[in-house]
Amino acid sequence: MSNTIFAKIAAGEIPADIVYEDEEIVAFRDVNPQAPVHILIIPRLPIATLNDLTAEHAPLVGRMLHLAAELAKQEGIAEAGYRTVFNCNAAGGQTVYHLHLHLIGGRPLQWPPG
Amino acid sequence: MSNTIFAKIAAGEIPADIVYEDEEIVAFRDVNPQAPVHILIIPRLPIATLNDLTAEHAPLVGRMLHLAAELAKQEGIAEAGYRTVFNCNAAGGQTVYHLHLHLIGGRPLQWPPG
Repeated sequence: MSNTIFAKIAAGEIPADIVYEDEEIVAFRDVNPQAPVHILIIPRLPIATLNDLTAEHAPLVGRMLHLAAELAKQEGIAEAGYRTVFNCNAAGGQTVYHLHLHLIGGRPLQWPPG
Repeated sequence: MSNTIFAKIAAGEIPADIVYEDEEIVAFRDVNPQAPVHILIIPRLPIATLNDLTAEHAPLVGRMLHLAAELAKQEGIAEAGYRTVFNCNAAGGQTVYHLHLHLIGGRPLQWPPG
């Protein structure tokens, strides 16, 4: 069982601005957006970090990336461009230990990415 | 057919510091590293951008993420932490139009990610 805020959002126990959900994945707007579009995409499965991925998770994680691209099209940022980011552990900037993919766009993004 | 520098690296036509390869994926060190560890993970399949993903690509893209986590462990940065990034199109900072995942770590990464 997972007690993180993202698990509670996925379970409907905490409100969020949800933009997509299905039986495996939930996507909602980041409450501290770093760009005009900033959406978080999470699996319902409580995987803590990228380090916890197994080969069996690959199709699910790939679906999260495909969904990011679909949401970028819906948000009107696909052609101009956008960035997707997974942070792992403290030096990577991870603050919630439920796997989440950041979809960020709507402004030019700088390099390096952090 | 793809004429990008990354397709040529995958084909063995241009040298690179390759850290992993199999029948589907090649990983090599970025020639302009933004951190002590900066590895690029690409599919052999010439997918130009995230916008070009289809549902059929999900397992392959998921394998790229799982490989990133495995390489982070090999590089000794998994516990401290790291970041993975896909850039899509110009505003996302994409410069080579062959899908590639950045694995970046070995220093604390800042927020926002660009």
